[in-house]
Amino acid sequence: MMIVMKETATDEQIEAVAAKVERAGASAHRSRGARVTVIGAIGDVDQDIAIGSLGLEGQPGVDRVVPILKPYKLASSQFRHGERTVLQIGGEKVGGGHFALIAGPCTVESREQVIATAEVVKEAGASMLRGGAYKPRTSPYAFQGLGLEGLRLLAEAKERTGLPIVTELMDARDLEPVLEVADVIQVGARNMQNFPLLAEIGRSGRPVLLKRGLSATLEELLMAAEYVLKEGNPNVMLCERGIRTFESSYRTTLDLQAVPVLKELSHLPVVVDPSHAAGRRSLVAPMSLAAAAAGADGIIVEVHPNPDEALCDGPQALLASEFAAYADAVHRAAQLSGQTMSVGSL
Amino acid sequence: MMIVMKETATDEQIEAVAAKVERAGASAHRSRGARVTVIGAIGDVDQDIAIGSLGLEGQPGVDRVVPILKPYKLASSQFRHGERTVLQIGGEKVGGGHFALIAGPCTVESREQVIATAEVVKEAGASMLRGGAYKPRTSPYAFQGLGLEGLRLLAEAKERTGLPIVTELMDARDLEPVLEVADVIQVGARNMQNFPLLAEIGRSGRPVLLKRGLSATLEELLMAAEYVLKEGNPNVMLCERGIRTFESSYRTTLDLQAVPVLKELSHLPVVVDPSHAAGRRSLVAPMSLAAAAAGADGIIVEVHPNPDEALCDGPQALLASEFAAYADAVHRAAQLSGQTMSVGSL
Amino acid sequence: MMIVMKETATDEQIEAVAAKVERAGASAHRSRGARVTVIGAIGDVDQDIAIGSLGLEGQPGVDRVVPILKPYKLASSQFRHGERTVLQIGGEKVGGGHFALIAGPCTVESREQVIATAEVVKEAGASMLRGGAYKPRTSPYAFQGLGLEGLRLLAEAKERTGLPIVTELMDARDLEPVLEVADVIQVGARNMQNFPLLAEIGRSGRPVLLKRGLSATLEELLMAAEYVLKEGNPNVMLCERGIRTFESSYRTTLDLQAVPVLKELSHLPVVVDPSHAAGRRSLVAPMSLAAAAAGADGIIVEVHPNPDEALCDGPQALLASEFAAYADAVHRAAQLSGQTMSVGSL
Amino acid sequence: MMIVMKETATDEQIEAVAAKVERAGASAHRSRGARVTVIGAIGDVDQDIAIGSLGLEGQPGVDRVVPILKPYKLASSQFRHGERTVLQIGGEKVGGGHFALIAGPCTVESREQVIATAEVVKEAGASMLRGGAYKPRTSPYAFQGLGLEGLRLLAEAKERTGLPIVTELMDARDLEPVLEVADVIQVGARNMQNFPLLAEIGRSGRPVLLKRGLSATLEELLMAAEYVLKEGNPNVMLCERGIRTFESSYRTTLDLQAVPVLKELSHLPVVVDPSHAAGRRSLVAPMSLAAAAAGADGIIVEVHPNPDEALCDGPQALLASEFAAYADAVHRAAQLSGQTMSVGSL
Repeated sequence: MMIVMKETATDEQIEAVAAKVERAGASAHRSRGARVTVIGAIGDVDQDIAIGSLGLEGQPGVDRVVPILKPYKLASSQFRHGERTVLQIGGEKVGGGHFALIAGPCTVESREQVIATAEVVKEAGASMLRGGAYKPRTSPYAFQGLGLEGLRLLAEAKERTGLPIVTELMDARDLEPVLEVADVIQVGARNMQNFPLLAEIGRSGRPVLLKRGLSATLEELLMAAEYVLKEGNPNVMLCERGIRTFESSYRTTLDLQAVPVLKELSHLPVVVDPSHAAGRRSLVAPMSLAAAAAGADGIIVEVHPNPDEALCDGPQALLASEFAAYADAVHRAAQLSGQTMSVGSL
Repeated sequence: MMIVMKETATDEQIEAVAAKVERAGASAHRSRGARVTVIGAIGDVDQDIAIGSLGLEGQPGVDRVVPILKPYKLASSQFRHGERTVLQIGGEKVGGGHFALIAGPCTVESREQVIATAEVVKEAGASMLRGGAYKPRTSPYAFQGLGLEGLRLLAEAKERTGLPIVTELMDARDLEPVLEVADVIQVGARNMQNFPLLAEIGRSGRPVLLKRGLSATLEELLMAAEYVLKEGNPNVMLCERGIRTFESSYRTTLDLQAVPVLKELSHLPVVVDPSHAAGRRSLVAPMSLAAAAAGADGIIVEVHPNPDEALCDGPQALLASEFAAYADAVHRAAQLSGQTMSVGSL
Repeated sequence: MMIVMKETATDEQIEAVAAKVERAGASAHRSRGARVTVIGAIGDVDQDIAIGSLGLEGQPGVDRVVPILKPYKLASSQFRHGERTVLQIGGEKVGGGHFALIAGPCTVESREQVIATAEVVKEAGASMLRGGAYKPRTSPYAFQGLGLEGLRLLAEAKERTGLPIVTELMDARDLEPVLEVADVIQVGARNMQNFPLLAEIGRSGRPVLLKRGLSATLEELLMAAEYVLKEGNPNVMLCERGIRTFESSYRTTLDLQAVPVLKELSHLPVVVDPSHAAGRRSLVAPMSLAAAAAGADGIIVEVHPNPDEALCDGPQALLASEFAAYADAVHRAAQLSGQTMSVGSL
Repeated sequence: MMIVMKETATDEQIEAVAAKVERAGASAHRSRGARVTVIGAIGDVDQDIAIGSLGLEGQPGVDRVVPILKPYKLASSQFRHGERTVLQIGGEKVGGGHFALIAGPCTVESREQVIATAEVVKEAGASMLRGGAYKPRTSPYAFQGLGLEGLRLLAEAKERTGLPIVTELMDARDLEPVLEVADVIQVGARNMQNFPLLAEIGRSGRPVLLKRGLSATLEELLMAAEYVLKEGNPNVMLCERGIRTFESSYRTTLDLQAVPVLKELSHLPVVVDPSHAAGRRSLVAPMSLAAAAAGADGIIVEVHPNPDEALCDGPQALLASEFAAYADAVHRAAQLSGQTMSVGSL
């Protein structure tokens, strides 16, 4: 932490702050400039947390408190000394050069829908099957998912195709049945800071696909991952799925800069969801290519055999009939990224 | 719903959309303009929900779908024909001209802290006592609240002062012990769209203080309220507590326009939390006066006998020693608002 | 400046950065923590600017560069040692306890409109008359203002009522005719960072009402003011007029926290424009009371004798017939603020 | 326009609105639903502008006014019946399948810097040379560009390499000297809504690179283009350069969805500036590949022979020594995009 004092701070105020820092176990370096004094306490993350909790912002004479260290430890690149996490899911690897294409319907609607989609995406080379049984909906009047029946249908699709399953958990009380089916538990954007849920999933040990909240910073996303990691579960994938901006001609704004930056900040794999970001089909292919070219470790995308009949988010689903061509293009873009990583690095 | 077709839409595309609307039970009025055709289906909210779930945005020839009706019913002003909801909490009323001053520490830290604060705010005329036993924290390494012990201390403060208690619930699995103490259950900003939690609280029937999410629109806040109301619990207070903006010299931006607008859109009382919005003490008094002058039905504010020693959010806590002067000024601002409501109304 | 090095920075990289800082004339204090090294160079603003222009963010081993001092000098509270600027406009004072009510039509439309409005607002105790002759419009097809003819009508209104005139300048090439009429030159939100325009107005010496850009931070607003002040013109009023947020049920979000914070950061008077922020009449009165209660030094508000016939922004104009009641309430709210300023200050 | 009436609107209010619409020359279709009435007036853009200027939002009984048509005409895809604009700049084409790589220093600093960079980028296959002589800077104390001397150096670089020149105009009073050198006039993000400047450039007829404002919507960008087009200048390139979001670990957020969406909405070429968006070199290559893969018609990127010595924005400049490898990768990504455009289109 660096504590920047006000120009008008008195010596007494400076010493009172320094004393508080030292009582928290850190050493307080005073740097007196021409106009202001800065008190530095550059220790480790735990010391930063201790000092951060002192509420120094409210002390007389303090202008602001500037954190120096990142507030996450287990999620940071430094924690693994620059080595990247590679997840093993079913027989598939994700991260560290292994690209995952996760595809399937937004929501499980019926036996034939989920089986048909699973077979199409399997055939086209997808690595996993996605599909929601529990759906967070803005409106209490909207379709909320098939629940247990949806999980059962996913299990059947997994049995037939061998594809690992990615499905969302919204309520810690549903953890058990979800664990019976899910190879990866998805945490939706609205639950990114549902801390009891994160901790529970952390304790389960099951791989997690953690979606960035609609207005979350990357630091907040990494702190959410930290809640999972702290419980002893190292199997976290980060997912960029679009952030809220002022632009109203698409649902959210896909933030692809998050891809290279998360890979700088963290060892965890980074996956992109272009379907929810864009909200309509015509944007999914260009943004998927862009995501792969930007270096994403995977893409999670919605596919439907008959999107016009989908109960949820049909307009953004790729047509099953076009999926093979799409998958091929995405894989070529991912290769392009792999070949050019060295330009611009320091 | 109004479905705006593209300029290039063919007659077949227009008829296909109209047919889908009609199969959903609505009548489809086609308005052909010089450049585009608009298909209108202006029924009631249920019909809008049915049409909204058709995914028409993805149909060939559709430019966009414009909702006409608000998506909430029970929370809308129309639902109570313009009459305002007045909550009864302990002996206190909130809403419909009754102003509530809810005060107390951010977090319950110790017996003497919570009792001392309770006595100060009671003395100064506060209507309820606030205090957190379960605290949502961005960092898993930060103090997470005293939990059950915190609830016990709140019960003791209630017994001594008679003040009704407002405290947060973060996890549906903690509902029972919270119900034993809380006169009002607070739902924090990060949980505004934790739909299973909202429904559970709805079923409990207990009054709710529902905080607006950091980047939530008013419509999303009202839809979150609708999740509670739909379960048969009419006792909801809406709370503006600051939204995220680009400004970095305060924690969040208090959106006081939300006060008159929520009161136009809904019959529910509107409370303002200036402490969390501002993040520092010097802004709390001016923003409290502003909130009261803007017509808020109440203010929820943090007070601490010794903010420098607070475990959480000390810098934003009012000093207990200044609370009586503060409370007096806020009440005068609330009166000012009451006297001038008629200017500018249509 | 504090330069935070990466955890992986080598000694050579640290020394290279320190050397660059020293070549820029500052002394570089190295603070080595358990994980990172921070290089501090805490001088004055000019030194900060020199170091800021070194582009150290791009140097090998640098994590980020954290400014310590505010980047503005003339606009800062410290520049006047805590004394507040009081503007003299016509016989009116603004700032330092003097509250200004600036009222008039959005746009000058006709002789009778501007004269009638001027007389109403004069009668009700307004301090100045506002009215636009040049209008920035998002659409090239919208009414762009009466230009020179509008200025002429403002001159006539001024002659008849004695009210000082506030009017907008959009193009430096129109400075001369505007100077003939304007007692205060308004710089609109879209031109807040039109630097040649700011410098030209600075050279003119005429008082300025500088509106905050729709997505500008307070620091950017103060830097824009600095462009005017730097040219030797000390007569700047800052104006909060609403910022863009995700909320769509009003035009922009009035950020009233900006009022006390700008008054902490700067000696310049702070004025609020509730009309443009809200975009509709029913919000103008509550937000005006809130602004005055929050401590604003003035309000600039739109009034029209017949808003339904206004060529621009009629829906947000107060009715001339209600203006006297409005002005009275606003003045009472301003008094309330004055009486309670001491609560919460350190 | 569709005018949505309130649920409580009376028949008189409905008829008063309809009458106003009809007096503006449109026909008013009344659609009475179960809860609300909607008045539709679906004509052409001019009629929409006329109705939009009536201020109906403020009329008694009106809930809101929903535009149906886009407010731009000349910039819309429909205006050219789906045909794309191809600009001819020097011997180079941009748009309609022709990809432009525009490269050069942020700011012209010296003869050797601009000549050396021009030669490197020419050699690597760039289509145009960029470089700023007039620089908009947030701080009045920062380097503001070499002005006329900078223009002279750009002219020399053009003479030596044959590359067309892209340079910024900030002040309409500098138009003449800029026209002597610039093949393309750049309008910076801060000037996107400097309407007098846009109109002046429109009258000049010179090709324009129009940057999206930091918080501008795509509709506002297209309206700004409309100001240029309306003056008879059809040579406009749109440029995405990053928008402001809450993320603080990069300067702005590059919005690549804008690429396919602007190409849907408009016939104008779309160029991406990854350098200013990211603010640091390590992000420029991945985001350039992503932009090209998303279908951009060009990229404008900063290159410097010695970024550590740059006077402005050095940290984001590509190294001249790496530019050839970069250019090659970008061209391959652009090809990839061209091959896959058909997936996902309706």
